[in-house]
Amino acid sequence: MASLDTTVARIDAPDEGCAAAAQRAFDAKTKPRGSLGRLEELASRVAAIRRQPAPGPEPAAVVVVAGDHGIAEEGVSAYPQEVTAQMLANFAAGGAAICVLARAAGARLVVVDAGVSGDLRVEGVLDRRIGPGTANAARGPAMTRAQAVQALETGIELAEELAGEGVGLLALGDMGIGNTAISSAIAACLLGREPEELVGRGTGVDDDGLRAKAAAVRRALEVNAPDPRDPVGVLAAVGGFEHGVLAGLVLGAAAAHVPVVLDGVIVSAAALLAARIAPAARGAMIAAHLSPEPAHTLVLADLGLTPLLDLGMRLGEGSGAALGVQLVDDALLLLRDMATFEGAGVTDAGA
Amino acid sequence: MASLDTTVARIDAPDEGCAAAAQRAFDAKTKPRGSLGRLEELASRVAAIRRQPAPGPEPAAVVVVAGDHGIAEEGVSAYPQEVTAQMLANFAAGGAAICVLARAAGARLVVVDAGVSGDLRVEGVLDRRIGPGTANAARGPAMTRAQAVQALETGIELAEELAGEGVGLLALGDMGIGNTAISSAIAACLLGREPEELVGRGTGVDDDGLRAKAAAVRRALEVNAPDPRDPVGVLAAVGGFEHGVLAGLVLGAAAAHVPVVLDGVIVSAAALLAARIAPAARGAMIAAHLSPEPAHTLVLADLGLTPLLDLGMRLGEGSGAALGVQLVDDALLLLRDMATFEGAGVTDAGA
Repeated sequence: MASLDTTVARIDAPDEGCAAAAQRAFDAKTKPRGSLGRLEELASRVAAIRRQPAPGPEPAAVVVVAGDHGIAEEGVSAYPQEVTAQMLANFAAGGAAICVLARAAGARLVVVDAGVSGDLRVEGVLDRRIGPGTANAARGPAMTRAQAVQALETGIELAEELAGEGVGLLALGDMGIGNTAISSAIAACLLGREPEELVGRGTGVDDDGLRAKAAAVRRALEVNAPDPRDPVGVLAAVGGFEHGVLAGLVLGAAAAHVPVVLDGVIVSAAALLAARIAPAARGAMIAAHLSPEPAHTLVLADLGLTPLLDLGMRLGEGSGAALGVQLVDDALLLLRDMATFEGAGVTDAGA
Repeated sequence: MASLDTTVARIDAPDEGCAAAAQRAFDAKTKPRGSLGRLEELASRVAAIRRQPAPGPEPAAVVVVAGDHGIAEEGVSAYPQEVTAQMLANFAAGGAAICVLARAAGARLVVVDAGVSGDLRVEGVLDRRIGPGTANAARGPAMTRAQAVQALETGIELAEELAGEGVGLLALGDMGIGNTAISSAIAACLLGREPEELVGRGTGVDDDGLRAKAAAVRRALEVNAPDPRDPVGVLAAVGGFEHGVLAGLVLGAAAAHVPVVLDGVIVSAAALLAARIAPAARGAMIAAHLSPEPAHTLVLADLGLTPLLDLGMRLGEGSGAALGVQLVDDALLLLRDMATFEGAGVTDAGA
């Protein structure tokens, strides 16, 4: 098992020299300088993260991590908890949105059970269960500290495995009834905000559901009183198994110099945990899209990330991240395949 | 040759019944209702335009139309006019940004010479030349009224050919030194705005260039005094050959029930011409992205379109439209391939 401490010690800042080299390569291409906008930035960012002056497209993986949450019993979701396990089967059968979008992006889909309720095992789903769903965070710690570390190290190990298999771009997704509530609790604690500022409608709770959700998040923070300076403790107190594994995936990818494409509020809350554990991990992150969840805007701002897309998507599963993979690949194809002014015999006005 | 008048007479409004049917199909899929945001709207829009309740991905084409502009001699561009022809050769050789992005989107690339300066013929480029570049609009009409009609009908005919070959999604792009100035002139006239509100830096003019550009656009409007109620006259007075062909492509696609993905300010100015000629043609338009050109925001607002992407791209060539094709295909794949709640055995909470 990969150790959390040794992985954190290995994470360093991206290589800005490689970013500058990629930008110089773009500046020689047949187009006005900077005219591909954020696609040029994106390719330069990948160059810096991978420490490659001329990065090309590499195999991408979308990893969807699922878990269940004791806090679901507080009525924080429009859907019953059984849906988490049902959706795992749907992922394995290829019928979920992320299955379609991962295929469209040419990315491998890896589905991980980090701790769904009950004892279901689904063929085609990686078994990395930390437990049969977390305890109800509104009444006590969601998990033990040992489970929190185990979840993080599970994610680190999975990122290392994927990097070892040649994955050069890692997109993250989530599944878990109740996990926007848990993400709001993590973000409220780490950002020092009130739950009411952060809680949103998730998959679609009504006004009563929204009030119940904010109240449950508030109780979770009051009952557990997690210390924001101790991110592993925050994960244990008010987090989820998928949040731990996702944060570990971010840390493992950052240590392996693999860019990580974030999805919506759940993945981003996990990325915030990772950034609090290892601040340099922020350098490996790319924000794919903005979800309508209020917490998402605040978490991305704290991480210093500007999302590529704003399409009103609020599904999770890595659906926004898969669209981000397409844009990263587009950027890297442009960097690799466009002709230069000199090569194509086009007059370079230097604009 | 397809007639402008008979094509305009054939253009009708999209079928909102098909849009509603597509939305109902999405509502049965394994996800909270509306949670795929604008991707759901996009699929419903394609359903309405194609008059298909369950549209799927169909072959896409990116058509890049090139022309030269007499107004270039007023110093409105950072690049010399020779670059238009050089870039045609680059398109044909596969080295331009749009070549890379069309390949990434799985779209066929069609490059059209609508009237580049000189007498160059490039292999692999469709010869649809209206003339050897337009006259300088700052000193008189850019083209004759007969040439304007010829350009429009050339575009209509090309759209009909492509639709006949099975193209079900048409993305448009442009190439032509000086064509952001011409686009600003068209937009200023049709929107009743001052040139200074609309003119931007295009491929990268400096402050002096920006002033020269606005002054040239103002002179073009003063010298020709085009009547905004006569869009064909506006095209003849202050337009470009590629604007005419692009507007014709929009009209022909709308008549053939093929969705048209718009690019930046040049294609959108041409789409505005099309909308003034046949208001119902607006129903066939999808705005792929927002360019930083001030005119683009105003033109899209007049057309009632909200762009999908805002990535700071200002290259033209259909580069933004090609990214839009990817998103349209993603939306249609989701509509076609996602499982339903019933089929996947997932509990539908109705949220």
